Amino acid sequence: MEKFIAENKERFIGELIDLLKIPSVSTDAKHKPDVIKTAEFVKEKLLSAGADVVEICETAGLPIVYGEKIIDPSLPTVLVYGHYDVQPADPLELWNSPPFEPVIKDEKIYARGACDDKGQMYMHVKAFETMMATGKLTCNVKFMIEGEEEIGSPNLEIYVRENQDKLKADVILISDTGMLSNDTPSITTGLRGLSYVEVEVTGPKRDLHSGLYGGGVANPINVLCEMIASLKDENNKITVAGFYDKVVELSEEERAAMNAAPFNIEDFKADTGVPEVAGEKGYTTLEHTSIRPTLDVNGIWGGYMEEGAKTVIASKAYAKISMRLVPDQNPDEITELFQKHFESIAPSTVTVKVNPHHGGRPVVTPTDSVEYQAASKAYEATFGKKPVPMRGGGSIPIVAMFKELLGLDSVLMGFGLDTDAIHSPNEHFGIFNFMKGIETIPLFYQNYAELKK
Amino acid sequence: MEKFIAENKERFIGELIDLLKIPSVSTDAKHKPDVIKTAEFVKEKLLSAGADVVEICETAGLPIVYGEKIIDPSLPTVLVYGHYDVQPADPLELWNSPPFEPVIKDEKIYARGACDDKGQMYMHVKAFETMMATGKLTCNVKFMIEGEEEIGSPNLEIYVRENQDKLKADVILISDTGMLSNDTPSITTGLRGLSYVEVEVTGPKRDLHSGLYGGGVANPINVLCEMIASLKDENNKITVAGFYDKVVELSEEERAAMNAAPFNIEDFKADTGVPEVAGEKGYTTLEHTSIRPTLDVNGIWGGYMEEGAKTVIASKAYAKISMRLVPDQNPDEITELFQKHFESIAPSTVTVKVNPHHGGRPVVTPTDSVEYQAASKAYEATFGKKPVPMRGGGSIPIVAMFKELLGLDSVLMGFGLDTDAIHSPNEHFGIFNFMKGIETIPLFYQNYAELKK
Repeated sequence: MEKFIAENKERFIGELIDLLKIPSVSTDAKHKPDVIKTAEFVKEKLLSAGADVVEICETAGLPIVYGEKIIDPSLPTVLVYGHYDVQPADPLELWNSPPFEPVIKDEKIYARGACDDKGQMYMHVKAFETMMATGKLTCNVKFMIEGEEEIGSPNLEIYVRENQDKLKADVILISDTGMLSNDTPSITTGLRGLSYVEVEVTGPKRDLHSGLYGGGVANPINVLCEMIASLKDENNKITVAGFYDKVVELSEEERAAMNAAPFNIEDFKADTGVPEVAGEKGYTTLEHTSIRPTLDVNGIWGGYMEEGAKTVIASKAYAKISMRLVPDQNPDEITELFQKHFESIAPSTVTVKVNPHHGGRPVVTPTDSVEYQAASKAYEATFGKKPVPMRGGGSIPIVAMFKELLGLDSVLMGFGLDTDAIHSPNEHFGIFNFMKGIETIPLFYQNYAELKK
Repeated sequence: MEKFIAENKERFIGELIDLLKIPSVSTDAKHKPDVIKTAEFVKEKLLSAGADVVEICETAGLPIVYGEKIIDPSLPTVLVYGHYDVQPADPLELWNSPPFEPVIKDEKIYARGACDDKGQMYMHVKAFETMMATGKLTCNVKFMIEGEEEIGSPNLEIYVRENQDKLKADVILISDTGMLSNDTPSITTGLRGLSYVEVEVTGPKRDLHSGLYGGGVANPINVLCEMIASLKDENNKITVAGFYDKVVELSEEERAAMNAAPFNIEDFKADTGVPEVAGEKGYTTLEHTSIRPTLDVNGIWGGYMEEGAKTVIASKAYAKISMRLVPDQNPDEITELFQKHFESIAPSTVTVKVNPHHGGRPVVTPTDSVEYQAASKAYEATFGKKPVPMRGGGSIPIVAMFKELLGLDSVLMGFGLDTDAIHSPNEHFGIFNFMKGIETIPLFYQNYAELKK
């Protein structure tokens, strides 16, 4: 397989670049034709790699690409999940090259979706091609590649529910996470959940002149700021009533093990550019970003935002607020607690609305399972080092849903790096990482087939 | 004169509508040709009304229209100030008819600038035409109509400084304020000043994924909200150190007189749509909006503001913040105090920048002056009621500048209403008010010439 991969490296990269050129932004309806085009691209590549059947499955939203290769029903079946949609690219002015015109610089491919998740998803397509071409496929394989991950997978659950037989498998394999560094491979064993809401604060029924009315009416922007400020206390604890009730505290041993992972605060500051780290009192940065829940304003707007000075008191102010959740917080419960709390703290001078967006449950996967062991040995073979089990800070809400509906555990074989700038301008993916993924994934199939015997 | 005005009413309104059709938005460079076109419109109308000389005076920015009619150097001279530029029209979706396609509904003209200040400025042009046509001009008159009021008149001061001889006059006459109601005429005797800043809070050097980094870095939007929230205390007092040091407290008598003005809190709530009024503890709504300084966020933005959910921690968050000032607060001092305060409260997890925009000093004009008396008698004649002297909440920074550079007091003969929605969607101006202005202004000239004898 190594020889096949090496000989086809340039072609694999070229295909990924073609895939990255299609702006499959799922949040934006005007990109729907691009999203469809991307689904067709994935279908074609799965077919040419050797899948028996590939279907573009319509949903109420954007389609899911399903493909399979059943070599022997008695062998274990791996269900690969990935997504072919990408985050919006804005703010465009901060990109050094256009987000949908991929360029290679310093051995990295720069484009929206390079890592999240086109690059990582495509490793699986090329690993499958490699196993097929070299006669080394040791498991049955099914692919379920969706186009709505970045908008919270609103139709995936329905699809999974309606196709439980078709999706029967032994394990789910996903590459949509990162690893510590190219020298220190790691496998994500836990993920945070998500609760996401949009809030609207209304003061006057129309925009008012700040000279004529200023001082006599509550300004909804000022009020929104005050309400947001009150959501955390001086120790950066979230003040939403009941927010921490179901948070499982880790043992001192678990915390010590997690804090032993290679992590340099100066590197973290240099990477992010923050003058100082911040976070909930009593926890480390590694803990802040993995085992502790958060509350972040992801967007805020209101009033006059253009050049120059306009003396206006806006009628409305808005914010998008998300909370990352940890076991055993339930996203529906947290969203409800937030809504109640936010309404309860609104002063009588304004009215407020809270609109829930999608949510996702936190998950943790055990390191002594067959699937984790199969992945761990695969990384060990290609990186020459045993990977570190890590709790991740992000959310893949569908992992909890797969467990619930299909009864399957997921293995998160991520090859991205935290520095890949996913969801940000200048997203990129190392060619080293893309190729390591293609080398490592087939070994997982081998190990998994052996361990399952 | 009454007859002339009545006979020409339709034409006067038609001309104003033509003037309102030109989108002379000074904040937006792409409207520069419209601004120039508007200046030419004003020039032409002054000439045809009978001005001896009209010039379009170039500045470093947008031009000033200067015109004059000197009938007798021994008579007093009135210098009319107005502006032909308008505020931006956004948010466009809240207008019931396009802002630059004026419509008349319920005896009101709806268009951006209908009241502020095209409608009110044009009353002076038509009053001048009326006096010329009927042989009733009793004073010399000079017009100075600028095109940059809505961006803080950056070039007017230079123009005034360089043309002190040309602008020699006895009094300045301005219609850029409102009156209490059509039944209760009033004249503005005081104006608030203005300090306007834009602030920028920077956290990470790039947008970060809120899953991977959330909880471990300060989110600049959350921080901006916390900083803004801290700018007022629980009594709605502004916390900027030194902010109130120079505020002149009114006597109990003055406060009682001002609170005797007709004002109904329920009407105010119905007009603005606020569920409750708000404001600094210990003062009434009338006081909040006139004799007390304010701090309002006029705009805020950062992060993801489009449809859907994006899980991002923005690199930067921004706000436009203005403070209305009262005697004897100095805008430059207040801007400096704000800047120092804002920098001092920034946590070490972010960096902040404060960029000052334009400012203006507060002013108060005496009611026993010749110019106030001339105006008061004019209103009394046309409205049948003595006008109420009122402190206004808005700012006309140039009034203080005229006093300083030309040594002249200004008379603020406003005919607009607080409900005219200036700076807001659906700005309008009553035809009653437009016509009353044209009738009242010539009487000011008559009274002023007599009182100055």
